[in-house]
Amino acid sequence: MPELRRDPVVGRWVIIAEDRRFRPRDFDGQKNPPTTGPELCPFCPGHESFTPPEVHAQREPGGEANGPGWSTRVVPNKFPALQIEGELDRRGEGIYDRMNGIGAHEVIIESPDHTKELSELSAEAIEQVLLAFRERMRDLRNDLRFRYILVFKNHGAAAGASLEHGHAQLIATPIIPKVVQEELDGALQHYRMKERCVYCDMVEQELREGRRLVRDEGGFVAIAPFAPRFPFETWILPKQHHASFDEMEPRQMGALARLLKDTLGRLRRALDNPNYNFLLHTAPCRETHLEHYHWHLEIFPKLAHVAGFEWGTGFYINATSPEESAKFLREMES
Amino acid sequence: MPELRRDPVVGRWVIIAEDRRFRPRDFDGQKNPPTTGPELCPFCPGHESFTPPEVHAQREPGGEANGPGWSTRVVPNKFPALQIEGELDRRGEGIYDRMNGIGAHEVIIESPDHTKELSELSAEAIEQVLLAFRERMRDLRNDLRFRYILVFKNHGAAAGASLEHGHAQLIATPIIPKVVQEELDGALQHYRMKERCVYCDMVEQELREGRRLVRDEGGFVAIAPFAPRFPFETWILPKQHHASFDEMEPRQMGALARLLKDTLGRLRRALDNPNYNFLLHTAPCRETHLEHYHWHLEIFPKLAHVAGFEWGTGFYINATSPEESAKFLREMES
Repeated sequence: MPELRRDPVVGRWVIIAEDRRFRPRDFDGQKNPPTTGPELCPFCPGHESFTPPEVHAQREPGGEANGPGWSTRVVPNKFPALQIEGELDRRGEGIYDRMNGIGAHEVIIESPDHTKELSELSAEAIEQVLLAFRERMRDLRNDLRFRYILVFKNHGAAAGASLEHGHAQLIATPIIPKVVQEELDGALQHYRMKERCVYCDMVEQELREGRRLVRDEGGFVAIAPFAPRFPFETWILPKQHHASFDEMEPRQMGALARLLKDTLGRLRRALDNPNYNFLLHTAPCRETHLEHYHWHLEIFPKLAHVAGFEWGTGFYINATSPEESAKFLREMES
Repeated sequence: MPELRRDPVVGRWVIIAEDRRFRPRDFDGQKNPPTTGPELCPFCPGHESFTPPEVHAQREPGGEANGPGWSTRVVPNKFPALQIEGELDRRGEGIYDRMNGIGAHEVIIESPDHTKELSELSAEAIEQVLLAFRERMRDLRNDLRFRYILVFKNHGAAAGASLEHGHAQLIATPIIPKVVQEELDGALQHYRMKERCVYCDMVEQELREGRRLVRDEGGFVAIAPFAPRFPFETWILPKQHHASFDEMEPRQMGALARLLKDTLGRLRRALDNPNYNFLLHTAPCRETHLEHYHWHLEIFPKLAHVAGFEWGTGFYINATSPEESAKFLREMES
């Protein structure tokens, strides 16, 4: 059973998951390209039995669960960081705090095609992936043990991917993660001062100034944030105020899919298919209609190593200004 | 001029330093070993003119500044993340905040030997390096523009080192970094509840339990922290309460050097010369005698990639428990 432990000074929780070390890897250390191929891939069609039974799938009419014929498939992670069964069993030990590592850890397989990166799928296929995110979040939110649901993606070995076949992940946690709590606290402080959502203010200022805008389309914007940690860090936000991703209407996912495809495509061409991470920050499970919080997608191409200074301070040194990266991405052919 | 920018939601500052991209590198991307050698190394003896003039050095009697004959040498970074001359010039721009990137960025060259890693130096040579840290911190603390001084080290390309020759770095910032502020806040909260330093409590509990203790020697302890972010994360702390590293007596540096050499040596043998980072967390410049804060050195071997989940949550997934890593390190021959 994985265990959650809290640092007694800063309150950062970590997951001690000793079984995770035995999970399979396509990548051998830091080397590219992958050392295994589709024949062993647990995410390829025909290999459905390599994964735990699916919890969601988009498939052709008449197709059977856990058989081929799907276009998007969601399965529990075979080597989960958190375990779905059990009680939290919170307990202290001197000055320390721990609880059982209860949560959900799922894999969203983006397409049957082993070789296609997310940005290479059709906008319609990406829409199905976004709908799968939404569907799983709405389902897991009903489990009262969970306080937060994070969807994220690691593309490429240097960004932490262990398997090559395009997939995103979802982790439901019994704690609101520290980074999200900081966003909630900061946004609430702004709201109390100004009676406005800080993200709405940001979108408004970026649309007016234009220098950090990558694209404005279909009710969503892609921007280079004012204080990016990494070169070419790019955020996507809805222009209207929405605290929760899973409270969006299904019909809005088509426009979001088109903007996501366009943005990832620009990054791919600008940076020669970079390793990257994205993460979807949304409101906590039980606070879906906050007036001060605004869901958004953060995309980080993995171009530089995070080193001692960043770990030690939380300061980031970035050699590319957001004005420059936004200009470069705007001028990329889409 | 580098620029400091603040994220309007979480208050994280970043340094936009466009000139940094042109700094020289021994390493080509993620590849090891280095692609250049001692003949071009700016840190090797005889190449003193390749760096800006030294600000501190330990050298043989009769030796001249900026000539050979030194054993430890501190120079300003030729490609600094922050610039020493100028005013902060704080200014707003709509909802955003920025200031000039004023600060100090120095390099502590640990020895004249291009090939020796810190743990391979003699304890006496490491003591000189620690004394150089202390000396530079005490000097820079007099500059009232600076709020914090961080000493850190990146060893190996994957840990963010750009040059092979063993060196640590020091950055003085006009802001107390977010990560340090979180430690200060958390420690103050504990102090207000208990009237005790949380780090003193931690040292006391680790010495009593022993399971996460790596070594206890000469007034300092090396421990695997209860909630480590990374496999084999190891901290060194003084057993007595001291808020500031630079308020330690010079005579205490010998014992610390011996423990640091021992600990880095154990990690080196256990993990086959891993890339690693260390960082020295000490009290802010103007608050050197805090009763609630306790300086410490955090060492992170760079074994795994930080991926989307960690970026998105501040949660870390660690597949090695601290009890296991401490046991392994204790049993390493020293």
